[in-house]
Amino acid sequence: MDFERPLDALNAARNKRVLVELKNKHQVLGQLKAFDIHINIVLDDAEERDEDGKTARKLGQVFIRGDMIVFVSPAT
Amino acid sequence: MDFERPLDALNAARNKRVLVELKNKHQVLGQLKAFDIHINIVLDDAEERDEDGKTARKLGQVFIRGDMIVFVSPAT
Amino acid sequence: MDFERPLDALNAARNKRVLVELKNKHQVLGQLKAFDIHINIVLDDAEERDEDGKTARKLGQVFIRGDMIVFVSPAT
Amino acid sequence: MDFERPLDALNAARNKRVLVELKNKHQVLGQLKAFDIHINIVLDDAEERDEDGKTARKLGQVFIRGDMIVFVSPAT
Amino acid sequence: MDFERPLDALNAARNKRVLVELKNKHQVLGQLKAFDIHINIVLDDAEERDEDGKTARKLGQVFIRGDMIVFVSPAT
Amino acid sequence: MDFERPLDALNAARNKRVLVELKNKHQVLGQLKAFDIHINIVLDDAEERDEDGKTARKLGQVFIRGDMIVFVSPAT
Amino acid sequence: MDFERPLDALNAARNKRVLVELKNKHQVLGQLKAFDIHINIVLDDAEERDEDGKTARKLGQVFIRGDMIVFVSPAT
Repeated sequence: MDFERPLDALNAARNKRVLVELKNKHQVLGQLKAFDIHINIVLDDAEERDEDGKTARKLGQVFIRGDMIVFVSPAT
Repeated sequence: MDFERPLDALNAARNKRVLVELKNKHQVLGQLKAFDIHINIVLDDAEERDEDGKTARKLGQVFIRGDMIVFVSPAT
Repeated sequence: MDFERPLDALNAARNKRVLVELKNKHQVLGQLKAFDIHINIVLDDAEERDEDGKTARKLGQVFIRGDMIVFVSPAT
Repeated sequence: MDFERPLDALNAARNKRVLVELKNKHQVLGQLKAFDIHINIVLDDAEERDEDGKTARKLGQVFIRGDMIVFVSPAT
Repeated sequence: MDFERPLDALNAARNKRVLVELKNKHQVLGQLKAFDIHINIVLDDAEERDEDGKTARKLGQVFIRGDMIVFVSPAT
Repeated sequence: MDFERPLDALNAARNKRVLVELKNKHQVLGQLKAFDIHINIVLDDAEERDEDGKTARKLGQVFIRGDMIVFVSPAT
Repeated sequence: MDFERPLDALNAARNKRVLVELKNKHQVLGQLKAFDIHINIVLDDAEERDEDGKTARKLGQVFIRGDMIVFVSPAT
């Protein structure tokens, strides 16, 4: 897929399952519901994994503050 | 629920009990009373838990500065 | 109390005794005299406590830079 | 090649394979698809390597938040 | 004293001796000569103390960058 | 040489070999090709050195994000 | 000397020898040639000293990014 702007890639991932890597080394997996230009993100059916990849917590819906995000990638 | 913008999810959580994860690894649980575009947040009946999940302090009402926030999620 | 915006909660606390948690893990207790949109805060009759809750210093009046603040809560 | 502005160099690298060094000391290699003035970046066919240069994860497409980036360089 | 805005408190301290706590845990004591909205501060007859309260250096006049400041308080 | 503004000094160094000190304690040496007001910088024929001054990597052309930079100085 | 604004103090130090304390605990001494509102600074005949006060490197001219600066003081 070709994108003019980085946010187009997030838009294409809307409603899909994504992996969000955080600056605290935790990861949150969930369905991408919303995002904005600060990369604030809302996920549904989210679960948080710690550095070792173990599920630490089921979060359900979660609002993640954009400045905590390292990257967003399709969950595999 | 479907949201156009991430802040819509916070709006839907107004007056509900939420879990706020902080960058200092502490968590604050309380009833979401107010928020703004910086994700500054006011909680009522709040309690702070440390990294191990133990209640460290009853805070009552608390104003949390937005740049300290990792995520906000419904309390389960 | 109900607030439209988070700063309304700080406004309601004006002239009351508050606990200010700082990013360096210290706490400052004092009477809230003034604040602005950056959450810069002025306290009167302030004292600083270290991580263990011991009073480290009597500060009298103190201007705290907003970006150092984790949360502000009524002192109990 | 001569550039007036730094972003011209990113533009010249579009669709080429680049190495993105992150502030968490990890590296992401992939094909540069999109970027913006915040240096938010989208890579295709991306893989993440840890500090020792070992491939930690295949990421496929990845959106990297600009403020996590140290440098972007052609992959060799 | 009553202040509408936090900067009013700094203004009232102009030409008085203040204690400036820095994010690197050092303190600078000196006469407050100037400040701006970023809380950039100029002190005269300044001395820097380390974490243990020992005078590390006589600085004379010093320009302190606002984003390094934790708090400013009257020197006692 | 006399400069009105700091960026004039970077302009005078254009096409010359410079040392760029990074916040991760690494250094990048290369020919300065472009910069902007955020101090985003593009170097040609760049090499990265670690804290001990050893060449860690040949980078060729590199785009360095401005907020990672400590200083830029003519390479000696 | 009396200053209305903090930058007036830097202006008064132009062409004089100053000590620049950095957030990485290093110091740079040199002749102040230029500065701007971000406190980006250009020094001539600069030398960098490490935490122990030993001269680590002769830098000649150096452009220092403002957000790395703790304070600027006349060199004594």
